[in-house]
Amino acid sequence: MQKMGSLEVEKETTGWAARDPSGILSPYTYTLRNTGPEDVYVRVICCGICHTDIHQIKNDLGMSNYPMVPGHEVVGEVVEVGSEVTKFRVGDCVGVGVLVGCCKTCRPCKADIEQYCNKKIWSYNDVYTDGRPTQGGFAGAMVVHQKFVVKIPDGMSAEQAAPLLCAGVTVYSPLNHFGLKESGLRGAILGLGGVGHMGVKIAKAMGHHVTVISSSNKKREEAIEHLGADEYLVSSDTARMQGFADSLDYIIDTVPVCHPLEPYLSLLKVDGKLILMGVINTPLQFVSPMVMLGRKTITGSFVGSMKETEEMLEFCKERNLTSTIEVVKMDYVNTALERLEKNDVRYRFVVDVAGSKLEQ
Amino acid sequence: MQKMGSLEVEKETTGWAARDPSGILSPYTYTLRNTGPEDVYVRVICCGICHTDIHQIKNDLGMSNYPMVPGHEVVGEVVEVGSEVTKFRVGDCVGVGVLVGCCKTCRPCKADIEQYCNKKIWSYNDVYTDGRPTQGGFAGAMVVHQKFVVKIPDGMSAEQAAPLLCAGVTVYSPLNHFGLKESGLRGAILGLGGVGHMGVKIAKAMGHHVTVISSSNKKREEAIEHLGADEYLVSSDTARMQGFADSLDYIIDTVPVCHPLEPYLSLLKVDGKLILMGVINTPLQFVSPMVMLGRKTITGSFVGSMKETEEMLEFCKERNLTSTIEVVKMDYVNTALERLEKNDVRYRFVVDVAGSKLEQ
Repeated sequence: MQKMGSLEVEKETTGWAARDPSGILSPYTYTLRNTGPEDVYVRVICCGICHTDIHQIKNDLGMSNYPMVPGHEVVGEVVEVGSEVTKFRVGDCVGVGVLVGCCKTCRPCKADIEQYCNKKIWSYNDVYTDGRPTQGGFAGAMVVHQKFVVKIPDGMSAEQAAPLLCAGVTVYSPLNHFGLKESGLRGAILGLGGVGHMGVKIAKAMGHHVTVISSSNKKREEAIEHLGADEYLVSSDTARMQGFADSLDYIIDTVPVCHPLEPYLSLLKVDGKLILMGVINTPLQFVSPMVMLGRKTITGSFVGSMKETEEMLEFCKERNLTSTIEVVKMDYVNTALERLEKNDVRYRFVVDVAGSKLEQ
Repeated sequence: MQKMGSLEVEKETTGWAARDPSGILSPYTYTLRNTGPEDVYVRVICCGICHTDIHQIKNDLGMSNYPMVPGHEVVGEVVEVGSEVTKFRVGDCVGVGVLVGCCKTCRPCKADIEQYCNKKIWSYNDVYTDGRPTQGGFAGAMVVHQKFVVKIPDGMSAEQAAPLLCAGVTVYSPLNHFGLKESGLRGAILGLGGVGHMGVKIAKAMGHHVTVISSSNKKREEAIEHLGADEYLVSSDTARMQGFADSLDYIIDTVPVCHPLEPYLSLLKVDGKLILMGVINTPLQFVSPMVMLGRKTITGSFVGSMKETEEMLEFCKERNLTSTIEVVKMDYVNTALERLEKNDVRYRFVVDVAGSKLEQ
């Protein structure tokens, strides 16, 4: 173990924090906890911007605490490890995602699906076991328990890896869990944002026939030419929608606002699955015969486990799967958040944290 | 093959038919098709009354054709078999359920889940491949393709077997399909009618811990003392409902009218399944985080396959599982339908067809 002496010292770091629900981030300096025996001290290289960050910054869920340093698609370099950390070494390129803690004793924790632990601890806007607020990846450094750190595969760039840690695993996990990885399946991605674009790429890499469903024709070329989707379907085109009836094994529904489910349920084959990814607090509706008469499933999924994150990174590495990103500096983050809110990004912003001056 | 000579002769039979949506059945004489090479000619012994019969008789779904002889929980004796029928012999006790035909070539048919075939043919109120209306089991006899006939296990009484052919397989099938057969699971049955009571019995026979959830306390003693449920939960008892949070592997929801789903979704464990059995044409509602954050499933199921029907009958035979029934004669059927509509039956009416005078 290197730098053992420094384990006893609290470190200062500077991040960009929201101070109130205005949506504006600005520099904020705070101390990180000592690197404990099972902790990894990570110098942040870059961090993706997820739509959830906006909800948290603006207190859309009514649960925000300030100052809040967002960011949960974090890639960094290991600077120091605790005495019981064996999986990581100083210099490793590693990732941190949506969670940094769990109870380790409940049924989901024991089943390695710690993302469903009721005592899970979020990477930011949460309280750690020592009573401190957790702070995310729009910052110089993080101290994270080794369970919630993954190795970035050799040869994968930090910027490319960042969006995989939330958007990537969010689509990989349900395909994995619901038995939808085999080649030849027919799937659809509803909504083409940060998660949706990873959905198309990952489903194509699995060998699926992939249809992008969207409310307008705007993204047709993008979906087919750039992302490699097989078909593009406009949801208001009733005739074409009918032509797709009973044809899909699954739909990954990334739409984050209330929408009718029945037009999509009707596209599913018998035993087909509608997998919801959007946090929508307005009730969604369906009539029971729509699911009963085809034994269809409405379900949803929340990010993925650390185990699935590792698998997904290997999967992307093997297939040379890259995310489509726009890299920005930290002093652009407020503009990036505004643009993301308008869906004006192809498809994920990644902040080059190490290349930014954080203190200005 | 016995009685080969008679295969060429159409047979008359008398059933009790609805002539209009009034809800009243009366005697009706009609001819059955010749017993074809793959057909089984069955003399009806008895037939259960299902809630769906009322919907069909009264044209609640707007798709009723009259005269209509209802009944799809039919047990009878084989009187004649076609030349290519090898599974059944004259004198066998057999059952016929909800379906009498399917296309045999589609994906569900090839996967032995013919109940999800888009060209399935219902036992009554449908049109057979020869253009004749199908007529159900409230009648002296039926001619049915061998694929849709099951052997009633030796030693099981006809009256006991009848409700298994729809209510029984309707609960057995989803438990089988969704991997919910293993001993030790915790399940709930929502609503205690014909399907619900079979749900309690079958789930108990599988070794599950079974909770009956009901809107009132009325059926508590019945559920615990007579059906063997482990717990009884009144859905309006908020405190006890909260005590059941995150505790169930599945809920079989037999409620046939619109009701909130969220109170029940919250009772499910991570990966728990809410299985809808009630045909409800008013939209059901839920918010997406309720399913996403526990990867919960809302699904439904429609009767079961012929293969599952055979399995389920063997399962009930082995475990001495009996249905709770009230046996009536055909001249009581109109009163029975009225009582069923008011839920005034413990728990299934079975018409003793062979012991009734049908022509009066």
